[in-house]
Amino acid sequence: MLEQFKVSEEDAVRVPEAGLRETVTAFFERMGVPAGDAALAADVLVLADLRGVETHGVSNTPRDYLRGYSVGEINPRPNWRVVRESPSTATIDCDAGIGLVVAPKAMEIAIAKAEEVGIGMAVMRNGRHLGMAAYHAMMALERDMIGMCMTSTPESMAPTFGSEPRLGTNPVALAAPAGREAPFVFDAAATAIAGNKMLLARRLGTDILPGWLADEDGSPIMDAFPAPEPSFRGGKATLMLPVGATRELGSHKGYGWACIVDILGGIVSGGGYGMNPGRPNFGHSVTAYRIDAFMDVDDFKNTMDEWLETLRTTKPAPGHERVLYPGLPEAEDEADRRANGIPLHPEVVDWFRDTCAELEIPFRLTDG
Amino acid sequence: MLEQFKVSEEDAVRVPEAGLRETVTAFFERMGVPAGDAALAADVLVLADLRGVETHGVSNTPRDYLRGYSVGEINPRPNWRVVRESPSTATIDCDAGIGLVVAPKAMEIAIAKAEEVGIGMAVMRNGRHLGMAAYHAMMALERDMIGMCMTSTPESMAPTFGSEPRLGTNPVALAAPAGREAPFVFDAAATAIAGNKMLLARRLGTDILPGWLADEDGSPIMDAFPAPEPSFRGGKATLMLPVGATRELGSHKGYGWACIVDILGGIVSGGGYGMNPGRPNFGHSVTAYRIDAFMDVDDFKNTMDEWLETLRTTKPAPGHERVLYPGLPEAEDEADRRANGIPLHPEVVDWFRDTCAELEIPFRLTDG
Repeated sequence: MLEQFKVSEEDAVRVPEAGLRETVTAFFERMGVPAGDAALAADVLVLADLRGVETHGVSNTPRDYLRGYSVGEINPRPNWRVVRESPSTATIDCDAGIGLVVAPKAMEIAIAKAEEVGIGMAVMRNGRHLGMAAYHAMMALERDMIGMCMTSTPESMAPTFGSEPRLGTNPVALAAPAGREAPFVFDAAATAIAGNKMLLARRLGTDILPGWLADEDGSPIMDAFPAPEPSFRGGKATLMLPVGATRELGSHKGYGWACIVDILGGIVSGGGYGMNPGRPNFGHSVTAYRIDAFMDVDDFKNTMDEWLETLRTTKPAPGHERVLYPGLPEAEDEADRRANGIPLHPEVVDWFRDTCAELEIPFRLTDG
Repeated sequence: MLEQFKVSEEDAVRVPEAGLRETVTAFFERMGVPAGDAALAADVLVLADLRGVETHGVSNTPRDYLRGYSVGEINPRPNWRVVRESPSTATIDCDAGIGLVVAPKAMEIAIAKAEEVGIGMAVMRNGRHLGMAAYHAMMALERDMIGMCMTSTPESMAPTFGSEPRLGTNPVALAAPAGREAPFVFDAAATAIAGNKMLLARRLGTDILPGWLADEDGSPIMDAFPAPEPSFRGGKATLMLPVGATRELGSHKGYGWACIVDILGGIVSGGGYGMNPGRPNFGHSVTAYRIDAFMDVDDFKNTMDEWLETLRTTKPAPGHERVLYPGLPEAEDEADRRANGIPLHPEVVDWFRDTCAELEIPFRLTDG
C-alpha cells in the first residue's frame, strides 16, 4: 500500500490481535451471526489488518456491515446452497450471506474438488461483501495448492473512453506457496486504486493522485487534488479510472481485467454482472489448483523460491530502497503486527468504543 | 490497437486472405513443418491479421520463426507429449514445438477435459512462440465454453521500483461467447504495450509514449520520444514498464498480473519462469470452462448480450466517438478484412516477395 495510506506511527494506537479479534467476533454475533461464522468473519477482517491491508480490515467495513445487517441487506444466517455442480465446479446461491463467511466455505468446496480432479472452482451469486480477496485465495497455501479469488462489485469504474460507471473495482487475488520465501500473494483491484482508499484518504487528509479518478464528463484527471468530501459533486458517485488511467498508458487493460472478473466472478454464477441494479450486487469466485496435478510440489516450491528471491534482489531504481514482490511486505507486516499489535487510527478506536457501548458488547481494543 | 500503430489506408496494400494463407502455409512447410500443422500455424497468424492484431500477424513474427527454424531453436516436427495429467489438467512437454501448433492441440485436450469434468487446463513447457493468445482462447467459443490463455515470455519488464528486466510481457487472453453481440475477447500484455509494438513503431516512424518504457536506471520515462533504433542503448534490451507505469498510477498491478502469468503459464508447467536463462523460455497455459457446468448456456449468452450492449452504449467522454469492449473492434476488423483483404505495410509485402523467391515457394499476396 502507498505510504500515504498508512496511518503514521505517531498517530496510531497499537491494538492487540486477540482483543481486536474478540471484539469483532462479538460484533458479528450481535448482528445475529452464529458463533462459528462470527469468528470466521472476524478472522477475515483481522488478517487484513495483520497484513497491512487496512482498506479491507476493521477500519472501514464494519460500519457498512452494521448498516447492512440493520436494514436486512445482509442475511446473518444464510441458507446458502450449491445449486449446480460438476466434478470441478460448484455454483452457490449465497442467500444474501456475507462473503466473509460464505467464501471460505466455497473455497473448502473448491479445494475438495481440486483434491479429486485437479482444479476446483466455486462461483457465488447473491453474495455480499467479500472482505480481503487474498484471505480466500490463501486458504489454498497450506494444502499445497494455488488459490485464486475474484469478486464482481457494484459499478464505480468508467470504461476507457466512457463517462459513466460500468464496472466495479473487481479485484483478483492469487496466492501460490513457496518454500523458504514468503508466499506469493497478489490482491488488487482493476481500478487505479481500491474503492476504500477514498475513505482512507479522507481520514488521513491525503491527496488523490493523477490518474486515479475521472472528471464528471469521463476525462481522466491527471493532476493531484485533495481527497473529496462525501458530498463531492453533489453526492454523485465518484468515477474511478481503470489501472492505466488513459488509453495511451494502457487503461483498456485495467478495463479488460475488470471485465474478466465480471465474467468469471459474476455472470457465470448466474447472478449477473456488477452494475446491474436489479440484481444482487456481489458475485464471487474462488478457484483451487492442486500443484501435484501439474508437477512435483517440491520442485514447484524450489522454483518459486528461486524466482521470488530473484525478484526481491532486483537492483532498485534511483529513489527506491528495494524491490518487493506481492505478498512480501504483507508477510513482514504480519510478523510485526502479530508481535507488536495492530496500528489503528484513533478515530477507528473511538468508533469501536462508541459502537461497543451502543451495542452492549465488550470493548477489548485497549486496556483503558 | 492505438491508431498510431495501424498502417495508414494510403500506405497499405490490401492482400487477399486466401493468398496470404496459402503463402504462409507454404512458408511453414518449407521450414519442415508437416502440412496439417503448417496450415494450422498459418491460421493462427492470418486470424491475427484479420482481427487487426498486426503485432501477432504476418508482419513481424515470420522473420523470427525463419531464424528460429534455421538455427534449430524451433522444432518443426515436435514429439510433444502429456507428461502428467489429472481429470481436469494436463502438463505437456512441447519438445521445442512452436506454440502456434502445440497450443491449439493443448486447447483441444483442455476442452475435452472440460466436457468431462467442467474445467480443463493444459500447461505447456519447453514451448516456443505462441502467436496471438486470443486464438487459443477463442477455440472455446463454438463449444459454449469460456477460454483462457496465458504465456510466460522472456524478461523485458522491470518490476515496480526495479532497474532490471525480470518479467515478460506475459499476455492473458480470455474469450467468452455472447448471443447477438460479438463475443468478448480480451488479449493484452501486462506491459504498457506489447513487445512487438516496438517493431511496429519503428516501421511506422511513430513515437514511444510516456509511461511505456523505463530509462536505463529503471526510472519510468514520462515523456514521448521517437521509436528507438535496434541499436538503442548500445543494443541493450529495452526496459518495458508494467501497465500503470509508476507505483502511484498502479504499476504494481501490471507487475502482479505478469507474475500471475509466470506462475500459471510458466512455473506450474515445470518449465520455470520467463526470465530463467537456463530454461526454455516460453511456458503457456490454456483453460476451458464449460458454461453449462455453472449455469444454463442461453441465460449466460443473454446476460452477456445485455452487459456488452450496456458497455458499448456507455456515453463517451469528450473527444471520443464511442466506447468499445474487448473483441468488438477486432470483430469489426475481421468482417471488413474477410471481405476486402488485409492491409499490409508495403515493406511487409516486399519481405514476403523476397523471402518467397529465396525459399522457392509461391508468392500469392498480390496479383502482380
